[in-house]
Amino acid sequence: MSSEEPSQSAAAEETGEKKLSKKELAKLERQRKRQEAAAASATAAIAAITVEADDPLAANYGEIPLNDLQSKEVSGRKWTEVKDLTEQLKDNTVLIRGRAQAIRAVGKKMAFVVVRERGFTVQCVLTVAQDVVSSQMVKFATSLSRESIVDIEGVVSVPSQPITGASQQVEIQVRKLYCVNRAVPTLPIIIEDAARSEVEIEKALEAGEQLVRVNQDTRLNFRVLDMRTPANQGIFRVQCQVENIFRQFLLAEGFVGIHTPKLIAGSSEGGAAVFRLDYKGTPACLAQSPQLHKQMSICGDFSRVFEIGPVFRAEDSFTHRHLCEFTGLDVEMEIKEHYSEVMDIVDRLFVEMFDSLNEKCAKELEAINTQYPFEKLKYLRKTLRLTFEEGVQMLKEAGIEIDPFGDLNTETERKLGQLVLEKYGTEFYILHRYPLAIRPFYTMPSHDNPKYSNSFDVFIRGEEIISGAQRVHVPEFLTERAQACGIEVKTISTYIDSFRYGAPPHGGFGVGLERVVMLFCALNNIRKTSLFPRDPQRIVP
Amino acid sequence: MSSEEPSQSAAAEETGEKKLSKKELAKLERQRKRQEAAAASATAAIAAITVEADDPLAANYGEIPLNDLQSKEVSGRKWTEVKDLTEQLKDNTVLIRGRAQAIRAVGKKMAFVVVRERGFTVQCVLTVAQDVVSSQMVKFATSLSRESIVDIEGVVSVPSQPITGASQQVEIQVRKLYCVNRAVPTLPIIIEDAARSEVEIEKALEAGEQLVRVNQDTRLNFRVLDMRTPANQGIFRVQCQVENIFRQFLLAEGFVGIHTPKLIAGSSEGGAAVFRLDYKGTPACLAQSPQLHKQMSICGDFSRVFEIGPVFRAEDSFTHRHLCEFTGLDVEMEIKEHYSEVMDIVDRLFVEMFDSLNEKCAKELEAINTQYPFEKLKYLRKTLRLTFEEGVQMLKEAGIEIDPFGDLNTETERKLGQLVLEKYGTEFYILHRYPLAIRPFYTMPSHDNPKYSNSFDVFIRGEEIISGAQRVHVPEFLTERAQACGIEVKTISTYIDSFRYGAPPHGGFGVGLERVVMLFCALNNIRKTSLFPRDPQRIVP
Repeated sequence: MSSEEPSQSAAAEETGEKKLSKKELAKLERQRKRQEAAAASATAAIAAITVEADDPLAANYGEIPLNDLQSKEVSGRKWTEVKDLTEQLKDNTVLIRGRAQAIRAVGKKMAFVVVRERGFTVQCVLTVAQDVVSSQMVKFATSLSRESIVDIEGVVSVPSQPITGASQQVEIQVRKLYCVNRAVPTLPIIIEDAARSEVEIEKALEAGEQLVRVNQDTRLNFRVLDMRTPANQGIFRVQCQVENIFRQFLLAEGFVGIHTPKLIAGSSEGGAAVFRLDYKGTPACLAQSPQLHKQMSICGDFSRVFEIGPVFRAEDSFTHRHLCEFTGLDVEMEIKEHYSEVMDIVDRLFVEMFDSLNEKCAKELEAINTQYPFEKLKYLRKTLRLTFEEGVQMLKEAGIEIDPFGDLNTETERKLGQLVLEKYGTEFYILHRYPLAIRPFYTMPSHDNPKYSNSFDVFIRGEEIISGAQRVHVPEFLTERAQACGIEVKTISTYIDSFRYGAPPHGGFGVGLERVVMLFCALNNIRKTSLFPRDPQRIVP
Repeated sequence: MSSEEPSQSAAAEETGEKKLSKKELAKLERQRKRQEAAAASATAAIAAITVEADDPLAANYGEIPLNDLQSKEVSGRKWTEVKDLTEQLKDNTVLIRGRAQAIRAVGKKMAFVVVRERGFTVQCVLTVAQDVVSSQMVKFATSLSRESIVDIEGVVSVPSQPITGASQQVEIQVRKLYCVNRAVPTLPIIIEDAARSEVEIEKALEAGEQLVRVNQDTRLNFRVLDMRTPANQGIFRVQCQVENIFRQFLLAEGFVGIHTPKLIAGSSEGGAAVFRLDYKGTPACLAQSPQLHKQMSICGDFSRVFEIGPVFRAEDSFTHRHLCEFTGLDVEMEIKEHYSEVMDIVDRLFVEMFDSLNEKCAKELEAINTQYPFEKLKYLRKTLRLTFEEGVQMLKEAGIEIDPFGDLNTETERKLGQLVLEKYGTEFYILHRYPLAIRPFYTMPSHDNPKYSNSFDVFIRGEEIISGAQRVHVPEFLTERAQACGIEVKTISTYIDSFRYGAPPHGGFGVGLERVVMLFCALNNIRKTSLFPRDPQRIVP
């Protein structure tokens, strides 16, 4: 589809990723003013229509005055959802509310309005007919701005030809049409443009047609419009499902859901990437993870806990996979003998999650796939586990020498992912027994070699998604490890003290919700899976 | 039960609620040092025992060295949970891990160790017998400090008399006993003391016996010990269940769970109670609620959303029901005609929640009731709705005159709750159509009288627990209302702009998770239902 009115998409030009500068802000402000002016002139135009309407059918269409929308009455009228509009309702009169996604006039006697509700669309038809639809009513319909909210009453009909422009295979022959809330006539993003795939844009270009490409910053500046695309509706419904499966699986395994404080004294895990603030005269910071408090809950006898909540990282990394605020899925559990007990939970939890997403979110995944094509994730019934040493060896055999006690970088992670896929046929695997030096101070060293640790990372499509480990549960040893890692011990004394009153061996892991969705769907940027992303250059909207 | 060793509970004296002063911190530091010294001397004592142990059965007991707890091997041994220890296991050898809750020597030939795991307890018996249990093993058992983690292997036996000191009605005849992790010998709180009810203390006092009362600040300073009481184990399991029911109910009603940012530019709802911080050079604050972003998600076509996440209020109120950080349960939804659609959700959701808690958390509620006795909440199958005017009238008839356009205070809320209970037999009801002047700027005024609004509060046992309303969805009117309420409009421009692209009428509500649990269980302080509470005077542990 071509961008019929390129000027309508004022903010859609490619601007690249950058901070909202004063200039940018001034531009947005000017745009807002233009929109207000446009809205005012639209309102005047509508008033004109209403005045002009010396029409015996005038009561059947028009703007609903605000007063009528202030909970004036409960009419008892029955509303039908667009998704429920099927052939069974043929010849029934129905009442729907949705957005005017597309409006098209056919001469002066006919108009089509495609109405969208929760991602489903239906074609509504106005045809001038004595005592049913007036020409003024058709004019009113064509005056609607896209994305306005409308109430439509009409009769369901079943056309002989399949409908291509809407999800529902019935039409509504409109009898009444009211505008509930009017969108500004000049939208900063057209939903059709925002929903277009790169493939479509490229293909059109080859055919000599230039389609509008909505760049990421524009999408995020006008997120409430961008959210309305089928892909985004799918992404955030998949995200909700990931969280559900995580919770339900763990609850069934005897875990308790907890909430730990995000406002803490000291820095939760050390390092510089901390947001600091003043807490009633005390220096405080935002938790970089629920690590310390989830471990304290284990010392408090909860045996197995999980937490879903925001995690704050004042990182300067401006990459495709870092955010300053994301949703952490955290787990902590007593272990009897071995950190493999934690890996067992990871294994079963994620295999169940992937199975369930493929099964229950098929429609959502298809919507995402249409705009952002991806291959289904390849994973094994029993998740592959490799040691870090084995990983280093595989890389070596492929001609890549890395420090056997250093960390993998993005590039070597990807490469190893490739090698694992070729050799084992999986894009989801666990790498464990990491070098101790590159893990946090609370990580338990290996029993046989203090250069290694009882820790693991989990990878999806060659990117790290989960970090986990057995923790040090002995307070004296924990103090020693903290000191060795340069942590100021007195800032974490309440944490260390928690282990003085009897502490069971335990371990756990943390996952980023946004990363799970991003990598399961092979999306190229984590901002796509955060509703209102926060990065070093963005704190709005 | 009397406090046998009052000196063991060093920090348990009544100190009243106050800030952790330097003096207090110094005291904690001294205490910590004492504990470290005690731990060191205990370790020495154990070493002495080990050296002394010229015992052919020496391999059957002792400290497990740290190295053996560093994931040395997966033994394949079968572990039994304490809760599963029943008569069916008679004569079986079982292996358990738990805390030594109580240790009692009977002469030098016998010892009892009550082991607790996840709130369940079992009595373990050591009796000196040739080739089975040595006197040194009994000595080792009695040297254990309370709350230490132990592994016990033994044979299940069924005593002829009912066991009163443990939940399980079987005993374990101990064959092997290892200490996994030793607690300091002098605990700052004894769990028995912390688990005692006021009633028990008062009754003992009448009988001339002074029992230790652990005051709230001490509990919170040593929260990991306090958490282990049966009441606290119950409280946080009930809390988890409240969250589950909230989620499951809403998911079944077509709501989508979302996560909105806690780091925002500007202040989310105005007012002074905001935590401010520097966000990469930009002034920012912590969201006082997800209000603005959940409404924006409605503009983004999610139709019905909910969010569970932390809410930050830099309030100075030091009351029994305010926290600086709590878990918000938030809902926002499109409405077709009337804010009663939102109240319908509240009604059905909470009736289902209360039913479900009473049914599924019976054991947890009983544990809470034992320490903090409360009457079951009285609620109707269909929740009572009164208008604010009706409430004012009821108060007037009871001789209490209040400003008909002012807010209720804590006292009048309580009084009204009493009157409602007497007249309608419910402790859960909705008061709606509040005066506009006392509601936030985004509240929709009533259609027939701009002094009232389409809003409601919900009360449990005479305390406000939920606030909800229809919102203003027209940007021009929203701007007007913000200005009238003294909000700097440009700080919330991205929010107001969200309504320019077609906004459906909508409403929603917010609930505090901690308050639901507190009031359902008639607890007297919100700090009891927050795992690590944050108030104006507390940011640790």
